[in-house]
Amino acid sequence: MLHDNLSVNAAGHLTVNGADTVELAEKYGTPLYLLDEDRVRAKCRTYLRAMKEYFGPESHPLYASKALSFKGIYKIASEEGMSVDVVSPGELYIALAAGFDAGNIYFHGNAKTMDDIRFAIDSGLGYFVCDNETELRRISDYAVEKGIRQKILLRLTPGIDPHTFDAVNTGKVDSKFGSAITTGQAEAITKLAMDMPGIELRGFHCHIGSQIFDEKPFCDAADLMMTFLVMLRDKYGFTASTLNLGGGIGVRYTEADPYIDIDSTLKLIGAHLHKICDENNFPMPQVLMEPGRSLVADAGVTIYTIQNIKNIPGFKSYTAIDGGMPDNPRYALYGSRYTVLLANRADEAAEVPFTVAGRCCESGDLIGENMLLPKDPKVGDYLAVLVTGAYNYAMASNYNCIPRPPIVMIADGKDTLAVRRETYADLMGCHN
Amino acid sequence: MLHDNLSVNAAGHLTVNGADTVELAEKYGTPLYLLDEDRVRAKCRTYLRAMKEYFGPESHPLYASKALSFKGIYKIASEEGMSVDVVSPGELYIALAAGFDAGNIYFHGNAKTMDDIRFAIDSGLGYFVCDNETELRRISDYAVEKGIRQKILLRLTPGIDPHTFDAVNTGKVDSKFGSAITTGQAEAITKLAMDMPGIELRGFHCHIGSQIFDEKPFCDAADLMMTFLVMLRDKYGFTASTLNLGGGIGVRYTEADPYIDIDSTLKLIGAHLHKICDENNFPMPQVLMEPGRSLVADAGVTIYTIQNIKNIPGFKSYTAIDGGMPDNPRYALYGSRYTVLLANRADEAAEVPFTVAGRCCESGDLIGENMLLPKDPKVGDYLAVLVTGAYNYAMASNYNCIPRPPIVMIADGKDTLAVRRETYADLMGCHN
Repeated sequence: MLHDNLSVNAAGHLTVNGADTVELAEKYGTPLYLLDEDRVRAKCRTYLRAMKEYFGPESHPLYASKALSFKGIYKIASEEGMSVDVVSPGELYIALAAGFDAGNIYFHGNAKTMDDIRFAIDSGLGYFVCDNETELRRISDYAVEKGIRQKILLRLTPGIDPHTFDAVNTGKVDSKFGSAITTGQAEAITKLAMDMPGIELRGFHCHIGSQIFDEKPFCDAADLMMTFLVMLRDKYGFTASTLNLGGGIGVRYTEADPYIDIDSTLKLIGAHLHKICDENNFPMPQVLMEPGRSLVADAGVTIYTIQNIKNIPGFKSYTAIDGGMPDNPRYALYGSRYTVLLANRADEAAEVPFTVAGRCCESGDLIGENMLLPKDPKVGDYLAVLVTGAYNYAMASNYNCIPRPPIVMIADGKDTLAVRRETYADLMGCHN
Repeated sequence: MLHDNLSVNAAGHLTVNGADTVELAEKYGTPLYLLDEDRVRAKCRTYLRAMKEYFGPESHPLYASKALSFKGIYKIASEEGMSVDVVSPGELYIALAAGFDAGNIYFHGNAKTMDDIRFAIDSGLGYFVCDNETELRRISDYAVEKGIRQKILLRLTPGIDPHTFDAVNTGKVDSKFGSAITTGQAEAITKLAMDMPGIELRGFHCHIGSQIFDEKPFCDAADLMMTFLVMLRDKYGFTASTLNLGGGIGVRYTEADPYIDIDSTLKLIGAHLHKICDENNFPMPQVLMEPGRSLVADAGVTIYTIQNIKNIPGFKSYTAIDGGMPDNPRYALYGSRYTVLLANRADEAAEVPFTVAGRCCESGDLIGENMLLPKDPKVGDYLAVLVTGAYNYAMASNYNCIPRPPIVMIADGKDTLAVRRETYADLMGCHN
């Protein structure tokens, strides 16, 4: 199987973390998001231990909650001793409502409003990852009004293209995010931040992209960021204490994707950073990284029921499912590739190509084309889409007025409803 | 201005249907969806009158509610004497909750579940637009169980490519929708439907695509559909009474898009259909069309507040707004083009290109690139995106845990809150 938490039981059913997905589909209905809680926790522990070991005792991961944000995930993050990052006041609100410690939250975003900043500071937010000068002034002004110095990191764009899909490249100079080093804007905003009365500048952040499968782009980013940090020390006598290398560690969606071993990748990045610091006689900074997709994606599986099979002679064959683009818009948005199988016939060889179509009234609503299924899939078969833990529930819409599916977490052989299914009445909750 | 319901008042503010958009932004906050109710009603009347006049007294439009579905829109449709189509049980539920007559509802969709079919028939649904054989059998079985014959249209794919963007082409043979005429599958499902005990086959449906700006593709589709209808009469003695030509009439999003006059376009299609019918001695069928976008898109304007301006020397300039991809994913999905202006400076010449970026933590979250704005836009300026009435609220998500904006309708110089703004607490409504 694609990941080692997936298996097939004696009944020929797909299991996730040991739980029979067919039984879960029958218990909770479809579409159904499943999330392997034990896998998420194990990944958190890997990152926590490895970052401490390879980067130093103060270094740690932040869970990038934009990948999957609901109350339960913040409880897990809290219990595992994770810090988190949020990208909006809504994510901050949910984290706080789940009891997450505000002091361990980092607040991202390129367009924070004054209301967002007030809400965050009033809540005792740990750190802003400050994107731009407008935001910097807003934070400082309000911090002064509150009589505090707000800890921040400044987001920089190091100018790296890790050769991933264009829409997920964020470390290039031409970006809506952050301040570019090469244009001098990073230095300018740093000087500004150093002098602001309400600001405690702790360090810098960069994010170079997504779906990265080796250490090289992170090491390249570290080179550029450390050159900048060394320059700041030499020119201004300012020694940054924190370097946040962002997210981007890749996830295996299909057999064609490579594996990436998190521990050994972090070890290589750590060794590289220690070397740069030694060469420059620079104290090893606290290193932060922001795994989001990497922590939750391959813990997730979505189960659908096939509603229709259509063979068009001379063209292709379609299976239509009871979900699609509203619960998983990633194919429509990015042409993302997934792996599917029949959950109730997981022991059968996948050999016939099908286009898996969603139920939306839109041609582009597909899960994918040329996806291999067992011969002769039937109406009523359960179709499992693997690796849907990240950016599925998070991006879900009510397009076509389709309610969002529930999330069921599986831990220790037990299934728990973490997010209930939306009802039709919920869809009208805001309608007058 | 792009449309004649938009203007600039003495204060230099953009007005929609006479209402000052800056005053509305201050009253309701931003992001804010505005909808010109009078414009929607006027368009309904144009379609209703023109279709009766050019196609015959039984012919009429259906509002394709997937473009924008909330309780208020079904009240307007009902008051104007429109029928509607829905594409899901959720849309059906909302229409019924708004008091819309079930008998005037057509239920679309390529993957209706057995529950959907039971719910619709139990509600007294007028018509299914039946997509496939599985659905046909399900409808017939349940209708027999209920002791009725359910009226249906069969969805066919005539095999037309109106040369629009690939993801919105639905009339091609290789489609997840309907049954293709050229493969013989349309004839096969028609024979089946004619003999089914629970089915009353009234006619046929096709939908050839979106953003069509002249009558030609509709006339081409009518040719193919009428050839099929004539064949059925000659071969089986079955004379279909209804021909549904679907939606697709285009909308002007930018100055580069053509105008389309609805009345004269329908007149040409009507004349063409009368001619085919005369030539074949075929009784003119009841003609249905399904304007969705065409009824609501250019009645909508979204107002945002600019949160940040970023000039990257040697690259481009960005304005970041307090919304984006979650409330308008069409650029991210299709690269759709829009027209923007500063609502509070609508009298100033637009001359400087900006990339308008949303607030999501995602590089692809843009409203558009190279959008012309007045010189020196400022933080706090209101940015208006025109022609957002269709597929904006309908496709909105809570990505990044961003609450969906409210919809304010403007009629007779009065503004009414039709959909309230989501709260942060709403985002957790389903979280356990």
